[in-house]
Amino acid sequence: MNEICRDFPILNQIVNDERLVYLDNAATSQKPKEVIDAVSNYFLRDNANVHRGVHTLAERATEQFEQTRFKVKNLINAKSEREIVYTKGTTEGLNWVAVSFGTQVVKSGDEIVVSYMEHHSNIVPWQILCEKTGAKLKYVKLTKNGELDFEDAKEKITAKTKIVSIAQASNVMGVVNPIKELAKLAHENGAYMVVDGAQSLPHMKVDVQDLDVDFLAFSGHKMLGPTGIGILFGKMELLERMSPLEYGGEMIDFVELDHSTFKEVPWKFEGGTQNIAGVIGLGAAIDYLQDVGYEEIEKKEHELVEYVLPKLLQIDGLTVYGPKEPDKHTGVISFNLDGIHPHDVATALDMEGVAVRAGHHCAQPLMKYLKIPATVRASFYFYNTKADADQLIKAILATKEFFKHGTI
Amino acid sequence: MNEICRDFPILNQIVNDERLVYLDNAATSQKPKEVIDAVSNYFLRDNANVHRGVHTLAERATEQFEQTRFKVKNLINAKSEREIVYTKGTTEGLNWVAVSFGTQVVKSGDEIVVSYMEHHSNIVPWQILCEKTGAKLKYVKLTKNGELDFEDAKEKITAKTKIVSIAQASNVMGVVNPIKELAKLAHENGAYMVVDGAQSLPHMKVDVQDLDVDFLAFSGHKMLGPTGIGILFGKMELLERMSPLEYGGEMIDFVELDHSTFKEVPWKFEGGTQNIAGVIGLGAAIDYLQDVGYEEIEKKEHELVEYVLPKLLQIDGLTVYGPKEPDKHTGVISFNLDGIHPHDVATALDMEGVAVRAGHHCAQPLMKYLKIPATVRASFYFYNTKADADQLIKAILATKEFFKHGTI
Repeated sequence: MNEICRDFPILNQIVNDERLVYLDNAATSQKPKEVIDAVSNYFLRDNANVHRGVHTLAERATEQFEQTRFKVKNLINAKSEREIVYTKGTTEGLNWVAVSFGTQVVKSGDEIVVSYMEHHSNIVPWQILCEKTGAKLKYVKLTKNGELDFEDAKEKITAKTKIVSIAQASNVMGVVNPIKELAKLAHENGAYMVVDGAQSLPHMKVDVQDLDVDFLAFSGHKMLGPTGIGILFGKMELLERMSPLEYGGEMIDFVELDHSTFKEVPWKFEGGTQNIAGVIGLGAAIDYLQDVGYEEIEKKEHELVEYVLPKLLQIDGLTVYGPKEPDKHTGVISFNLDGIHPHDVATALDMEGVAVRAGHHCAQPLMKYLKIPATVRASFYFYNTKADADQLIKAILATKEFFKHGTI
Repeated sequence: MNEICRDFPILNQIVNDERLVYLDNAATSQKPKEVIDAVSNYFLRDNANVHRGVHTLAERATEQFEQTRFKVKNLINAKSEREIVYTKGTTEGLNWVAVSFGTQVVKSGDEIVVSYMEHHSNIVPWQILCEKTGAKLKYVKLTKNGELDFEDAKEKITAKTKIVSIAQASNVMGVVNPIKELAKLAHENGAYMVVDGAQSLPHMKVDVQDLDVDFLAFSGHKMLGPTGIGILFGKMELLERMSPLEYGGEMIDFVELDHSTFKEVPWKFEGGTQNIAGVIGLGAAIDYLQDVGYEEIEKKEHELVEYVLPKLLQIDGLTVYGPKEPDKHTGVISFNLDGIHPHDVATALDMEGVAVRAGHHCAQPLMKYLKIPATVRASFYFYNTKADADQLIKAILATKEFFKHGTI
């Protein structure tokens, strides 16, 4: 058992008589003991509602709750901790931007630009906004390699564009998009740049000031934190223009019988009791990530992809989607095996202890673009090992062998 | 240490050199070890995203995630587990009803009826709906005793009323409202009945079929569960009429480039990764509550109120708001001490180890109605003891003594 495994107790288990190899990190990451303990310790020692009480437990809980905001600010280099809004996750963050900011800046005839590789949560909110406003949704094409076609982005992003919303990293093919250049292009055309950071924050250093993005949404649970907590970063002046989305306790200043006034950013967005344990767990996750260091995380993931991708490409009848160069990948690799349905592949791999995802990965437009119904996705994180990669390869070969004599 | 204290490790601690007496249960309850362990064990053994994977961990997580829906269904006697929608908490549930259902049924000139004792989360969403639609928000008066004035409810709820939204139990005065009768009155007038159950579900058996309510929103964290998870119950045919509020992964059927179709109720409301650990923790909380039994919970709370309320009323210069009869109270008691600001009282009580809340309790209209700026609120739960009540009384007397010679 190596050091990383000691930190992630869940990885030390047997599944279907085999060692568990967890390669579904793009769906959700595992949690180190530090995060699990932070959540438990909050419940065991400090549990109280925040901002509302003057008693000792409430003060302790509030301090930890607000401390995470500073940790997130530092993590993404926001100008102020007040630019950090707690959400349920990436989906809620993107929806809030579409509903509360989008309706203010988008009018009939305007355009919103996404790409063909977006996750549904970065497509459907904009479709609904277009339906409401009469704006048009445009999709940036991909190159044959599966990367964003920047030349097409230059065509699609015009003076008509009001919002550009692109994932920093693809949840299907693991490609990384040039957000800084896209933000520049958006701003030159008078548009706002929104970033889906769900698949990038876990893997790479993100600096919102350097990238100059207007909004960035991401989830705690894909970056070692608990489920049900996410972050919406927004530039202060833009967050200030947005109306609250959930009205209730602790987000108001004054409630009169017929109207109310609201607190300042970010608290006006945080009506009702938040996921306090989730926030505190996210704080511990950020500490852990920073202890490991993004440089080390990127190095480890790159070593893994460099090790496993050529082995996958050597397998007869296996197609990898997206770039074939390890340099152009996060730990996410999508593939299919000729003649075997991806779900059957995933089920067969599970029998060998290997947890991967099969399906459209909430990216149906991408599947149609690639002219496939689904893929198998193996998504590595820094705590995976070469032994995990070997077990994946071995399991794929066993799957091929099984289905050769099987019933498909 | 009694049995209950063993289940709630947080209660066995010293705060400011005194035994902790936690009487801020109306803000959030403490969590039994079973709930803390359920959350930890999920992270330690079964953590995976739900509904998306065919691998073993994903199946285990999904099973537990959906099991809670059945537990909630049984808890409130819903007709189907599909009437149970996961939310962040009561606030989100009420907001969703106002935004997605309210906008469908409320038109200009219509009326929405709440009461003067509502929490902001059951006022402000309706104010915003009224602003949007041109409807009018009406408030049911209270009796001198602080109870809902049912005669006034009969005046206010008319053929113009489209929605009646009332808390089942007050978060300030602990009074319980006649929801069944109010629902009947609402329905007779062609209106829908929405219930804020945040302060009732922790304390009493709630049967949505018997009460015949149309919507019921409540929070996990006030009933032994984790923060960041709540429930919106709605009658199936009403939930079916509602549009989703957050668009993204796992709530869609098909995403085309320009439009999408959505899953059925309740999953169409659950876009993005939910608070899976929170849901599993809530399931454990419901198990715990049902092991203790609502009959026992009500009995214990009643014994505590019967014990402490007369002692409070005997204190010179102490005013209790709401009914003076223990029978008419949940464990929530609001009071003030003559000449001492509630915040000073709460701070002084904290020095004696007693955690209470001071403020407007997110009920500013009620404070204005009572012509007071704030109250001190001691809120008991079934795990509190007579020793806790004694320490509260002792601490109040010490506070009075201190401020007699103090600086206010």
